[in-house]
Amino acid sequence: MKLSQKAQRCTLSPMRKFTPYAMAAEAAGKKIYKLNIGQPDIETPPAFFEAVRGFSQKVLAYANSPGAGFMRDAVVDYYHRIGVDYTRDDVLITTGGSEALQILFLCILDEGSEVIVPEPFYSNYTTFIQAAGGVIRPLSTVPEEDYSYAKPALLESLINEKTRAIAIINPQNPTGNVLTREELRAVADVAKKHDLYLICDEVYREFVYDTDDVLCAGSLRDLDDNVVIIDSVSKRFSACGARIGMLISRNKALMAEALKFCQGRLCAATLDQVGAAALYSVGPDYFEKVRAEYRRRRDLCYQKLTAIPGVVCAKPMGAFYAMAKLPIDDADEFTKWMLTDFDDHGETVMCSPANGFYATPGKGKNEVRIAYVLKERDLGRALDLLALGIERYNNR
Amino acid sequence: MKLSQKAQRCTLSPMRKFTPYAMAAEAAGKKIYKLNIGQPDIETPPAFFEAVRGFSQKVLAYANSPGAGFMRDAVVDYYHRIGVDYTRDDVLITTGGSEALQILFLCILDEGSEVIVPEPFYSNYTTFIQAAGGVIRPLSTVPEEDYSYAKPALLESLINEKTRAIAIINPQNPTGNVLTREELRAVADVAKKHDLYLICDEVYREFVYDTDDVLCAGSLRDLDDNVVIIDSVSKRFSACGARIGMLISRNKALMAEALKFCQGRLCAATLDQVGAAALYSVGPDYFEKVRAEYRRRRDLCYQKLTAIPGVVCAKPMGAFYAMAKLPIDDADEFTKWMLTDFDDHGETVMCSPANGFYATPGKGKNEVRIAYVLKERDLGRALDLLALGIERYNNR
Repeated sequence: MKLSQKAQRCTLSPMRKFTPYAMAAEAAGKKIYKLNIGQPDIETPPAFFEAVRGFSQKVLAYANSPGAGFMRDAVVDYYHRIGVDYTRDDVLITTGGSEALQILFLCILDEGSEVIVPEPFYSNYTTFIQAAGGVIRPLSTVPEEDYSYAKPALLESLINEKTRAIAIINPQNPTGNVLTREELRAVADVAKKHDLYLICDEVYREFVYDTDDVLCAGSLRDLDDNVVIIDSVSKRFSACGARIGMLISRNKALMAEALKFCQGRLCAATLDQVGAAALYSVGPDYFEKVRAEYRRRRDLCYQKLTAIPGVVCAKPMGAFYAMAKLPIDDADEFTKWMLTDFDDHGETVMCSPANGFYATPGKGKNEVRIAYVLKERDLGRALDLLALGIERYNNR
Repeated sequence: MKLSQKAQRCTLSPMRKFTPYAMAAEAAGKKIYKLNIGQPDIETPPAFFEAVRGFSQKVLAYANSPGAGFMRDAVVDYYHRIGVDYTRDDVLITTGGSEALQILFLCILDEGSEVIVPEPFYSNYTTFIQAAGGVIRPLSTVPEEDYSYAKPALLESLINEKTRAIAIINPQNPTGNVLTREELRAVADVAKKHDLYLICDEVYREFVYDTDDVLCAGSLRDLDDNVVIIDSVSKRFSACGARIGMLISRNKALMAEALKFCQGRLCAATLDQVGAAALYSVGPDYFEKVRAEYRRRRDLCYQKLTAIPGVVCAKPMGAFYAMAKLPIDDADEFTKWMLTDFDDHGETVMCSPANGFYATPGKGKNEVRIAYVLKERDLGRALDLLALGIERYNNR
């Protein structure tokens, strides 16, 4: 039996491919500090569980395909509160931001279509774009320039007749880059000029640490047809397991196509929509508290990383990741070795090797992504283990 | 901005495309008996909600990408109980049977690859296969032969170098056809001889009314590499809103590819896996009771349908659908008219027009699919409304 070429082109997730080694290490009694996955340890607001426990229908029925009305309305209300005017019809509820991306790329990509994506980028974009027959055209960024990509001339140099979209993650996973208003405008102008979709993955919107001046791309009202927002409750409310995301756009033709795929898979999970809608009842104090917590972790993470001899790291401005170039030969090998061969008092640390975050072959070979999703004490210990691991790995 | 050709080739779901008309009719105070969607009114076993309410973790975290261990084990145990030997590694937990199909077709179809599917078939197969770049090669069946498709010569006549799989739904949605052991063996032999995947969608497995002699394709141990089972808790436990399904196969190369897509979308919903695993604790008495209920509805549905002058209908042997050829010109128009222009004492009925269940152009134009998912009294009234509607529609 044959396997598809697109499946064979895809790879295992860099965040998850070492999970079997981790499970074996844990089975052998090793404690692993997990910085590989953006799985926060912040408590999910109890409103989620209360709403779910209060569900009293006897039949767990399908929700509407575009999303439950109350859930779409909760999202619309949230956007109103941050000053962005969307209506219920602009919002489709999806199974995580992941499905929003899958559906979007199915709607806009044909075989060989290109999407411009600043690299390094969240590696699952590769899977979603390839699954839809598309290709990533990377715009390379570097830590020495804070991973900046708002460079119109460079962006335009990557556009050709196959280009369908510019996809940005703002705040950026994995670099922590955050666009200023002027930078977002500069990228938007390129999309507008060349009639491209501007895909803005803003799932980390609330997690910006050094400025309040961040713009949601939904505010760019001269790009109503271009802008598509990818959103999710996963990171915002530390509710990754709910798998509730959103595809948001004022482009009616696009949303009509997206609805076909939404109907095809029937609906997002009913009970999770009940819980997720309740999450939007938390006040601004929740975000302030969580942001302050992540800011402290960001500071600790950056301080610890830059103190390791030979490590190159740009200070993340948002999200909860840091990219780090390590003084090692191969991050894949190192990650595996840390699980199979290293421990300090029975403990080790797991990061994501970063080659999967690049589309350009060979890039990211000695880089890792670190998710600072642990309490400061654990995070500090994890980064000390990383430092120790690097030293022992190079002396092995 | 361009839209993809594959999206434009897809259509809205025949089960759901008239939902806006239904919502308008309901807003105007009309009562609609909904026979359009396979949304049973049978109560979800309370075990689901009890397990969900008992979830005590503070963080709603991602589950493992292949599925939570306890959920995969619950599925393995269930298969053991029905005499089929699968291991945890043979089972991937997906967001409904829908996602199992999506992932499977991404794994096995290239641009232009063909899948042989007996028609009429569950219409969302079209969306999933087209999304993966594939094409449906239909094997036409007719009510006069009980929609039988276990015809080796006919199947073989549809095979060419692009054929990757034979996909069957057993028991069949929408026809109610159920394969005998011999028929399943005949289809399997064709798949084996031509080295094709045999995709067996067995989500209605427990709902067979006139025989106990039904074989799960997972029992065909000489086709370990060919057979892929699509399964789900949606229909079995009346838990459609949970969106928990399974992709099951002993073909290790296929499962390795599927895992890439599973990792790409991170996981199926955590809490729904907790609830779904608990569903498998219900005993055989649950299925017996539900089966008896559906059998009574099937009998009533068939009796009422065949009593309508001009209706052609084969007696469904399984699942909870009946296909019916109606004495009308256009089922699309009729369905819309029943929502917008018809009522009897403020009540109407909604079926699914069946053209979307066929791949052959023009077929199914005067057919509908009826889901007998209402209590007998409501079902009887709904079918009386259908009879009345047909009469008035033809005299309008």
